[in-house]
Amino acid sequence: MDKSSVPKATLGRLPLYLELLKNLPKDSYKYISATTIARKLSLGEVQVRKDLSAVSGAGKPKVGYDTENLINCIEEHLGNKSLTEAVLVGAGKLGRALMQFEEFEKYGVKISAAFDSNDKVISPDGKVEILPINKLRSYCEAKHIRLGIITVGAGSAQAVCDEMVASSIMAIWNFAPVKLSVPAGVTVKQENLALSLAYLNNQLINLNS
Amino acid sequence: MDKSSVPKATLGRLPLYLELLKNLPKDSYKYISATTIARKLSLGEVQVRKDLSAVSGAGKPKVGYDTENLINCIEEHLGNKSLTEAVLVGAGKLGRALMQFEEFEKYGVKISAAFDSNDKVISPDGKVEILPINKLRSYCEAKHIRLGIITVGAGSAQAVCDEMVASSIMAIWNFAPVKLSVPAGVTVKQENLALSLAYLNNQLINLNS
Repeated sequence: MDKSSVPKATLGRLPLYLELLKNLPKDSYKYISATTIARKLSLGEVQVRKDLSAVSGAGKPKVGYDTENLINCIEEHLGNKSLTEAVLVGAGKLGRALMQFEEFEKYGVKISAAFDSNDKVISPDGKVEILPINKLRSYCEAKHIRLGIITVGAGSAQAVCDEMVASSIMAIWNFAPVKLSVPAGVTVKQENLALSLAYLNNQLINLNS
Repeated sequence: MDKSSVPKATLGRLPLYLELLKNLPKDSYKYISATTIARKLSLGEVQVRKDLSAVSGAGKPKVGYDTENLINCIEEHLGNKSLTEAVLVGAGKLGRALMQFEEFEKYGVKISAAFDSNDKVISPDGKVEILPINKLRSYCEAKHIRLGIITVGAGSAQAVCDEMVASSIMAIWNFAPVKLSVPAGVTVKQENLALSLAYLNNQLINLNS
């Protein structure tokens, strides 16, 4: 099945399904129906069927999904079977918060190292090593890293991006409030936290007017 | 004009337009055309026209937009004219990172106080006061706060949410990886940072397969 066919919203619910399925008593749930899953997670049945069909095909009529198989399919889509290693550049407050985010591994990604221009920065809890920025390229080449996270300020984001591209990174998650220029073939996901808050505020303003 | 008609993507570009317009030499740009704005920001002309028409109506043919008027319209939509005050609960790494985010004010929101169950937590730079969580309700009532940000762990998010609702907060930005239950009329925006990263990883996996 083509993984790119999984919509983002579905992808967001996969960890929910996975957690539910893994915690079911094995004896009673060799098979499970979309109806049961929907009820247990307070989701719509149509949505559950659609989500599951995107990752594993349809369940057997009157029987449901083979639970073990469904777990495997979801894990494969989440990339849990083989964690993708990512690097982060910018070990400030936000960078450190992300380094401690346990949720990432549930979605198949592990921040394996962080880089900072200040090589005196100490790792928050010793889990993620912080290296000087001039080690970025050799690190990425040695570990075949393809995913990078930028949490530096707007002023240095493009330079960090260029260095990531030179290090063969193919996908960049950018938190700096600046539009990055990248060569064709490199994907950038711009994260704009302020925008999310602004949108909520906009709804609030409308609510009151 | 109905502010709710502004799409999120447009809202995201408004600060770009605003920054450009405010930094133009006043004498040369009493009026500015969509073409000029598009060129200066490397955006498509159709997109610029669409964005600006959503906030201020069309420009004058062959003349363009009245620059001062356009600035006013954008500021009004961003809520810059009157900053919305928000509270944040959970002054851990992520909470502190958000408390220092300067971008929020550009989008019309100011975190005016933070709350934590550990009242020994010290504010990162003294700009945002951190108060014990039991002061949340009286603070929100006194300052008529309607916007709340949750950066506690999954285990305490619902309790914090309930306390926010009891404090008359109407819009909640939730970073905890848990689906919150709120009464009708209260808006929740779920922020799932792990999901953004997973999505990027998913694209990377497809790129390689």
